[in-house]
Amino acid sequence: MVQEPSKVDVLIVGAGPAGLMAAAWMARCGVNARIIDKRGTKIFSGQADGLAPRTLEIFDSFGFADRVWKESFHMIEFGLWNPDEEGVLRRADRLASTIPELSRFQPVLLHQGRIERFFLDHLQKHSSIKVERGVLPESLTFDDSLAEDEDAYPIQVTLQHLSEDEARPEQSLANGKATSDGLFRSNLAADDTDELLAKVHGNERAGTREVVKARYLVGCDGAHSWTRRQLGLQLEGEQTDLIWGVLDIIPITDFPDIRMGCSIHSADSGSVMVIPREKKLVRLYIQLSTVEVGDKGKLDRTNITPEMILECAQKIFAPYKLTYSHCNWWTAYQIGQRVCPSFHRSHRIFLAGDAVHTHSPKAGQGMNVSMQDTYNLGWKLASVVNGTCKRSLLETYQSERRRVAQDLIAFDHQLSRLFSAKPAKEGGDDHEGVGMDVFKDFLERGLVFGSGTAVEYGPSVVVAKEGDVAKHGDGTRISVARLAGGERLVGKPWLASGIKVGVRMPSFQVLNQADARPWPFQQLLRSDGRFRVVVFAGDVLSEGQMGRVRRLGERLLGVLRSFTMKGGDLYEVFDVLTVHSATRTGIEFLDFPEALRPFAGEMGWDYDKIFVDGPSHYEGDGRAYEGYGVGPEGCLVVLRPDQHVGFVSDLEDVVGVERYFGEFMVRS
Amino acid sequence: MVQEPSKVDVLIVGAGPAGLMAAAWMARCGVNARIIDKRGTKIFSGQADGLAPRTLEIFDSFGFADRVWKESFHMIEFGLWNPDEEGVLRRADRLASTIPELSRFQPVLLHQGRIERFFLDHLQKHSSIKVERGVLPESLTFDDSLAEDEDAYPIQVTLQHLSEDEARPEQSLANGKATSDGLFRSNLAADDTDELLAKVHGNERAGTREVVKARYLVGCDGAHSWTRRQLGLQLEGEQTDLIWGVLDIIPITDFPDIRMGCSIHSADSGSVMVIPREKKLVRLYIQLSTVEVGDKGKLDRTNITPEMILECAQKIFAPYKLTYSHCNWWTAYQIGQRVCPSFHRSHRIFLAGDAVHTHSPKAGQGMNVSMQDTYNLGWKLASVVNGTCKRSLLETYQSERRRVAQDLIAFDHQLSRLFSAKPAKEGGDDHEGVGMDVFKDFLERGLVFGSGTAVEYGPSVVVAKEGDVAKHGDGTRISVARLAGGERLVGKPWLASGIKVGVRMPSFQVLNQADARPWPFQQLLRSDGRFRVVVFAGDVLSEGQMGRVRRLGERLLGVLRSFTMKGGDLYEVFDVLTVHSATRTGIEFLDFPEALRPFAGEMGWDYDKIFVDGPSHYEGDGRAYEGYGVGPEGCLVVLRPDQHVGFVSDLEDVVGVERYFGEFMVRS
Repeated sequence: MVQEPSKVDVLIVGAGPAGLMAAAWMARCGVNARIIDKRGTKIFSGQADGLAPRTLEIFDSFGFADRVWKESFHMIEFGLWNPDEEGVLRRADRLASTIPELSRFQPVLLHQGRIERFFLDHLQKHSSIKVERGVLPESLTFDDSLAEDEDAYPIQVTLQHLSEDEARPEQSLANGKATSDGLFRSNLAADDTDELLAKVHGNERAGTREVVKARYLVGCDGAHSWTRRQLGLQLEGEQTDLIWGVLDIIPITDFPDIRMGCSIHSADSGSVMVIPREKKLVRLYIQLSTVEVGDKGKLDRTNITPEMILECAQKIFAPYKLTYSHCNWWTAYQIGQRVCPSFHRSHRIFLAGDAVHTHSPKAGQGMNVSMQDTYNLGWKLASVVNGTCKRSLLETYQSERRRVAQDLIAFDHQLSRLFSAKPAKEGGDDHEGVGMDVFKDFLERGLVFGSGTAVEYGPSVVVAKEGDVAKHGDGTRISVARLAGGERLVGKPWLASGIKVGVRMPSFQVLNQADARPWPFQQLLRSDGRFRVVVFAGDVLSEGQMGRVRRLGERLLGVLRSFTMKGGDLYEVFDVLTVHSATRTGIEFLDFPEALRPFAGEMGWDYDKIFVDGPSHYEGDGRAYEGYGVGPEGCLVVLRPDQHVGFVSDLEDVVGVERYFGEFMVRS
Repeated sequence: MVQEPSKVDVLIVGAGPAGLMAAAWMARCGVNARIIDKRGTKIFSGQADGLAPRTLEIFDSFGFADRVWKESFHMIEFGLWNPDEEGVLRRADRLASTIPELSRFQPVLLHQGRIERFFLDHLQKHSSIKVERGVLPESLTFDDSLAEDEDAYPIQVTLQHLSEDEARPEQSLANGKATSDGLFRSNLAADDTDELLAKVHGNERAGTREVVKARYLVGCDGAHSWTRRQLGLQLEGEQTDLIWGVLDIIPITDFPDIRMGCSIHSADSGSVMVIPREKKLVRLYIQLSTVEVGDKGKLDRTNITPEMILECAQKIFAPYKLTYSHCNWWTAYQIGQRVCPSFHRSHRIFLAGDAVHTHSPKAGQGMNVSMQDTYNLGWKLASVVNGTCKRSLLETYQSERRRVAQDLIAFDHQLSRLFSAKPAKEGGDDHEGVGMDVFKDFLERGLVFGSGTAVEYGPSVVVAKEGDVAKHGDGTRISVARLAGGERLVGKPWLASGIKVGVRMPSFQVLNQADARPWPFQQLLRSDGRFRVVVFAGDVLSEGQMGRVRRLGERLLGVLRSFTMKGGDLYEVFDVLTVHSATRTGIEFLDFPEALRPFAGEMGWDYDKIFVDGPSHYEGDGRAYEGYGVGPEGCLVVLRPDQHVGFVSDLEDVVGVERYFGEFMVRS
């Protein structure tokens, strides 16, 4: 039975972390969106679990980082274990898990099912978007001629609604115990979309079929992406012969660092990575040295059992003992580093997450980079659909995110090589093995990359700065913001030496002027789809400086109003935050110009707009101006809805602000 | 229709914060309990809202302080406003809202309805206890001859189940707007239990009647307590003529400190206390200078309207303007400081919260002290009902909590007097008015009291220390812990100079030995009903010290086992935590004696038992040994389930531990 075609602005295929992140933006920005998933249930165990500091910052901007922080295992320290001169395993070194200055958060571990739960709760709180499970995309047609027609629905998808039985994923029970076997979702298994569809078609009791017309489609359907296949795209890159096993167990062991992150390089039996988890669980990534890979580069996966993986681990852990009674989940995978040549079709159909990049899970980046893909795409898509931004904004998605994927692939390639290599013999003259110093040095440099806070987007219409567009992006040529004369818009980035244009805004503590409460500045940058103008007002106790701030206030509102739809509320599109550096007690909230502290009728003044850099009663001194590298003369910083810095200039450069927004926003 | 009598171990009457706190303990300790409330719904607005640091510590021990912290208004600073020499209002001073060293938390404000919500969620998570609403107690009989029979149910209560209509509280709509009028719950109104019962009896469609037999009853039924009346008890103390109005509004004002806590003393129009709230609300406590009190000391409450309260406020705020469009709630009350002569009947029926003490709400203590009453009572009651402790433990409830009520009444009396008094004229020779210096000095001393962290319980069977029992308690004579020879058990409190016996354990940061994660030590002291032995193991890298710790381990477990019911799990009654002061990296988790890091079969070692004082990677150095005043030789600290310190001695004094528990615990 085929129903009448329905219409939707954004259709998201796949409700894993990447798809849910996209849905979260749609929920927050009020976009008419649907999200479907072929599976009948969400993840309950296993799968990805590492959360990088930047991902926690993003969760915090949606308001649920605290739930993750409370439930997760906090990774504080990392132990490096190597054979000594006698070939006996010993702790060679300890490393802090990250660099304290990078973020307010440290890496944590929590299984993917909980992350999905927090997203689902978030969707429910902010929208009527619900994940539609047991829904398979069957066919996709795209009318390229309508791609640039803003009102068109150029995408048509036929959806097959599965019955409950059909949607339940097959999972084997190992040893009669209810252990989740993750092989069916590992990259060692083929995609089962076609199989599921075939089953439905052979089934009289099959569910209904539905045709959906969409303005945009986001494919977040994993490594075997059905959406990617419809676009005729393939991942490109290497596939190695190394097979790794994964066990989520409650270990019983005399190995001292079992509750630390660890890398263990044995003399002759391969390597293990130890990643502790919540609820006494520990995840082990184990090199399966004994597994033969067949002719076609794919191995017979029936050989792989948890017992076999444990045996490999025991050899690497020796002389320490390792066993378990509880195994929560296990899987195996083949290392490969591949990336998709294109992330979109005509900036109407987008691919994100595992659908466009695969790599080993050991860097703990998979779920993070995938969610960050759609965190980048979501607000752009929402603002185009809502009519505030032009379609040209969308070309920054591939430029920004494919570049990150390329960097990730390079990082993971090196990590995997170092991790799989034999350790160099201590004190010896071993030219083949990898020395502990080399490995440690790489890990230390990797902490910055792994935190996710260093991602720097290249110049574009939303990143006003110097630099070669192709070189700083993924290689594609995209537009940049320009001044009226045609020169590139670059502002005066030197006025905020601690802030990098293209990088996410760092966080330093500021105090609310009206109630003295300390806030990490980042916590004020909520993911609500709004662009932000941060007015570093400087030392407003100087008469001249307050004069500059007053003049800025009125002119700035005028510019922002010109990008607000008629009759619309300026503050639904823009947020203006002021941070001054005068003494808090030397000035009153009402001394600031009204443009910077709007009056909201029956709700009175908005007391959450003026902040100050200064000492707090209970949380120390944030020294925000010092951290941001801003002087008493202040400056202007424009932030994208994803907290990345778009433009920096002085308090007079309202024209620059106007050019910046004018490049990609729709004028009212 | 009367049903067959049912039986319950603990019946809680009243589901406000005090009743819910009692229920939380019952839920955590697995006690068969019921909690009833005459109202048909929980609180939705208004009522108490101030939460002191100690209350947040308690919430944290149940695991939901984070929810309060996130939603609440954080009170950071307090402004003192007074007339200047010309009689014009000006800011005379600013005070920090508390003293940073007192607690991990600062005072916050959040309306009572949300607090109740968190308790309800907690009950649901940990038990099958549900609040039964619209249930009125009709009659109470108590068989005193059965009071000391541990298996008896000496209490019999008849309950009337109201229909939905009858249980809905009457609330007037002010000015046709849906503003909650709190007068019906203010102390200006009489108790409506009898009225509600009369209504039921005249109603053919009345709900069912039920007879319940209970072992214990806790009356948390407010200032007009029905339970208290059944016991023939009355509050004793003063009732003044001063009437105060309360407005919860979103203010529209040019008063600069409207988002700070403030006291405003006008020259001739009385005083206002400003308490900002969550969601842009501000609560104003306003002296109603124009209200006449009638002959009987009670005023005609129909005179009191929000408009009239606002007018009083406007006079006090002048020359600043004050108005509002949104009023969320309002009420009025008469100041009185009264306390009940007894908190119990035969240690079977207990009274707590507003049922035994009333005072002005301005100190922000009401909800706090009320919840702390049942936080004190709950674990005692649960451990007696569960058979781990003797009934003699229950006599400490009145001794400890009535004393706190007496102290609160004295504090509030002084605060109310100072706050209601006319301000002294600046620079003048005013002997009648209260000077700003006097008021400020009192407020500063009040910060310690108000934090709730300074409460010190006197000597008793669960507080082993020197001192006069009656003088340090509420005046009643109760038993104390004694050595075999009859001398009082006092241990060696000087071994931990930063820890006061009888006071709640302070918090300093320690690190988990196994995973290096920093924890505020207090966060490890969860409210699960267990007594805790904290082993300050000292410098375990010294051979002799580790020998002492090893010998302690085995002997200590032997003692604890003797108080664990046969076949029971030692760790369900006791928790043993070790904090050492050696270098973390100089020692391994498995170097500690097994007695201090138990092996839990299939779940492996318990890695959450050994902690270390030392620097962390991301959270600084807790300097816990310095803070607790413990030397490298270590000591033993026994904590009650409510985190109050019961006993301190050296690592050899296992006999002392045995005497301590032997005094009030049941031997197996």
